[in-house]
Amino acid sequence: MSWDTSGRCGSRKPPYSALSPAAGRTRLRRHPAPAGSLPLALVRICVLAGGVGGARFLLGARRLLGLDEEAARADSPHQIDAVVNVGDDAWMHGVRICPDLDTCMYTLGGGIDPDRGWGHAGETWNARDELAAYGAQPDWFGLGDKDLATHLIRTQMLGAGYRLTDVTEALCVRWSPGVRLLPVTDDRCETHVVVTGGDDAAGRGDGTGGGDADAAGPRAIHFQEWWVKHKAQLPASGFVHVGAEQATPTAEVLEAIEMADLVVVAPSNPVVSVGAILAVPGVRAALRGTSAPVIGVSPVIGGAVLRGMGDACLDAIGVETDALAVARHFGARSGTGLLDGWLVAPGDGPTGADTAPVDEGGIKVTEAPLLMTDPDATADMLTAAIRLAGLDVPTRGPGITGATGGAR
Amino acid sequence: MSWDTSGRCGSRKPPYSALSPAAGRTRLRRHPAPAGSLPLALVRICVLAGGVGGARFLLGARRLLGLDEEAARADSPHQIDAVVNVGDDAWMHGVRICPDLDTCMYTLGGGIDPDRGWGHAGETWNARDELAAYGAQPDWFGLGDKDLATHLIRTQMLGAGYRLTDVTEALCVRWSPGVRLLPVTDDRCETHVVVTGGDDAAGRGDGTGGGDADAAGPRAIHFQEWWVKHKAQLPASGFVHVGAEQATPTAEVLEAIEMADLVVVAPSNPVVSVGAILAVPGVRAALRGTSAPVIGVSPVIGGAVLRGMGDACLDAIGVETDALAVARHFGARSGTGLLDGWLVAPGDGPTGADTAPVDEGGIKVTEAPLLMTDPDATADMLTAAIRLAGLDVPTRGPGITGATGGAR
Repeated sequence: MSWDTSGRCGSRKPPYSALSPAAGRTRLRRHPAPAGSLPLALVRICVLAGGVGGARFLLGARRLLGLDEEAARADSPHQIDAVVNVGDDAWMHGVRICPDLDTCMYTLGGGIDPDRGWGHAGETWNARDELAAYGAQPDWFGLGDKDLATHLIRTQMLGAGYRLTDVTEALCVRWSPGVRLLPVTDDRCETHVVVTGGDDAAGRGDGTGGGDADAAGPRAIHFQEWWVKHKAQLPASGFVHVGAEQATPTAEVLEAIEMADLVVVAPSNPVVSVGAILAVPGVRAALRGTSAPVIGVSPVIGGAVLRGMGDACLDAIGVETDALAVARHFGARSGTGLLDGWLVAPGDGPTGADTAPVDEGGIKVTEAPLLMTDPDATADMLTAAIRLAGLDVPTRGPGITGATGGAR
Repeated sequence: MSWDTSGRCGSRKPPYSALSPAAGRTRLRRHPAPAGSLPLALVRICVLAGGVGGARFLLGARRLLGLDEEAARADSPHQIDAVVNVGDDAWMHGVRICPDLDTCMYTLGGGIDPDRGWGHAGETWNARDELAAYGAQPDWFGLGDKDLATHLIRTQMLGAGYRLTDVTEALCVRWSPGVRLLPVTDDRCETHVVVTGGDDAAGRGDGTGGGDADAAGPRAIHFQEWWVKHKAQLPASGFVHVGAEQATPTAEVLEAIEMADLVVVAPSNPVVSVGAILAVPGVRAALRGTSAPVIGVSPVIGGAVLRGMGDACLDAIGVETDALAVARHFGARSGTGLLDGWLVAPGDGPTGADTAPVDEGGIKVTEAPLLMTDPDATADMLTAAIRLAGLDVPTRGPGITGATGGAR
C-alpha cells in the first residue's frame, strides 16, 4: 500500500529544501535529488479541495504542471497533493460514501458525469430503484450502480482495517488521477447541520437526529440530508463537525502542507468543504506553520456563489456572500488566520486590485478570471495564484520549464 | 418483526392436533381454531428446499394450496413453510449473499429471471463491471445491480443484529412470496468443497483456502467458488459444512417440522442443498421425530440429475446418480434415516412402482411425472407426494375443499 512503490511521486519524507531566491522573487522550491536516487518531486502544490469545485480546480493544476498524461507523470518531478474534505462522508445503506473524494477521483480519472459534475458518466440506478421498492431508508440519496462498486470496495477495506487514506490510494490505482488524493483525516469527522423545522420525517433518514415528536425544534441532521433531501432550503443556524474532537489530520496531510511550495485553497464551498477541512484539529496550525505561501481562490463571483446553495452555508454562519467577506472569514496569516493571498474575480476586489495586489487586512488581494470553464482557464487561475504568491510560474507541459529557465 | 402480526399465517405455537382418520386413509390434519380466535393454519406443509429446484417446487405447492393470489392468502387456512438451505451463502464484496433464499424469494415473488432461474429479471451488471475494472476479487461471481439492493439491506440488518430469519421475513414483505421462507439456521454454516488441483489462483478468490505454493494439494474452497468459478469440474472428494458444530436450527424451523401435516424434501440437490440442510445439528432429529410423514421427491430423472452439475456432488460423496440410490442415501425413517416415502420419475422406480407404492428398504417408492414444467405440473407432483403419504389431497383453489369434503 505504500505510495512510493512507483518511485514517481516523491518520497514521503523528502528532505527539507531551502527557498531559492531568483530574479528578485521567490522561486518555486526544488527538492534536491540525492545522488543516485530517483528524481524527487521538485514542485509540490498542495490544494485544499471539496467536491465539484475542488475537482475542477485540480484539473487546472494538473494541466499547468503537465501531469495530464500518465506517460508524462512518470518523468515529471512535479507533485500535486489534494487535501480533500471528508465532512460530507456518510453511511448509506451500509456502505461508506465519500462524495468529495470520489468526485475528485472520478473527475481526474475521466469517469465523471460531465453534466451533473458528480457521479459516473453513463450511470444506472437499478440498485437505487430496488432499494426504493423495498422501502429502504434513506430514500432521498441515490447510489448509482457503478458508484456502488467504489463504495463496496471502500467499505470492505475499511472493515478490514485499512485507513481511508490507504483505501483512497488503492481506488486511485484504477483511476490514475495524477494527483495524490488525501482525505484530510482517517477519522470520522462529519458535518451535521443545525436546523429548525422541516417535515416530520426530516431527521429519520440516517438515524443521525430527529425522529422526536417535536419536529419543529432545533436538531442536527447530517449534511447530506440537509443538502440532498432539503436542498439546503431548511433554515440552518450552524454546523457541527461530529467527531472533530477525536480527529487528527493524517501524517500525509501534514507532510503535504509542510513540504508544499504553495498551498492553494480551491474555490470550494468555504463553509462545508474548506471549513470542514479546517475543522480537523491540527490543519489550521499546519497551514499557519508551513513555509509555503497560502493562497485562496474565491468561490464567490459577482456577489454570488457559483455552484448552487453555497450561499445558504455562508448565511448559516453569518458571513456575507461576498468575495472579501469570505477572505476575512478565513483571515490573514499575518494575523490569526490562514491566508497570504486571495484571488477574486474581476470586479470583486478592492479598488486597484485589477492591476496589482492590494493589501486587505494583511491579505494580498488581486483580481483574475475565476470561471473554471476548462482546464486551461483553470490553469490560468493557478498561474494567477502562483504570481500572487510571488513565485515563478512553470510553463505548461511535462518537465520543469519554469520562467526561471530551470531544467531537470 | 413478528410473523404473526397479520394474523393470517397461523400461530407460532398452534395446539397439537390429532390425526383424523377418514374414509380409510389419514386425512391432512386440521388444527382446530379456539373459539373466538382467528382461524389458524389448518393444512401445513413443510418443504426442505434449495435454490432453483426448491423454488419451482414451492410454486407448485403454492398452486395446490390455492396460495398464488395474495387476496386468497388472507382467507386461507393453509400454510407452507420452506426450510431453505443456507450452505451456499457467502460474503462477496462485503455483502452477505443468500442465493437459495433469494432464488425462492424472487421466484415466488415474480421477480426471477425465468431463463437463468436465478437473479432478477431485467438485471443489469454495472456494479460488477466496475468491480472488475478495479480488479476486485472475486471476479468470478457477478452481483447484479438490482440484486445488490437485497444484499445491502440484508447486510445492514445482519450488522444491526437481526437474525437472518428476521431479515428474510423483512425482505419478503416486499416480495410477498405466499410461502414462509425460513433459513434452516441463523448461524453461519457454509458448504466448502474439498478439491484437488485447479489453477494457482483457485483458492484465493474469497480467502477461504488455497493460495499456498502447492496448488495441487487437497484444499477446501467455498462451494460458490467450486460451483461458479470451476463449474463443479474440479474433482471434489467431499464437502465440509463450516460452522456446523456451532449451528442450530431456528425455533421457527423446528416448529415448522414438528407442526407440519406433511414434510416434503424438494427435488433439490441432495448433497449441497438438502444435505447442507441436514448438516445443521438437530434437523435430522426433528425430521425423525415429527408426526408428519416425510416424503422425498427424486432430483434424479432417468439416471441423470436434471439441473446441471448435481451429479458431481453425488460423485463426491460416493453416491450413484440414481433415484433409488439417493433414497437409500437419505435412508428410511423406519431405520436410521429420514424418509417415509420417495417419489421417482416413471421408469426410475422398482418393478411395480408405476402402479402402486413399493417398499424399498422401509421407504415407500412410487412413480409420478417429476418434470416441473409449470406450477400445475408441479402441483401434481405434490399431489402424488400427499397420496404416497396416505393423506387426502386438497383440491386446488382458495379455502379448504379437500377430497374429504371438509369446508371452513
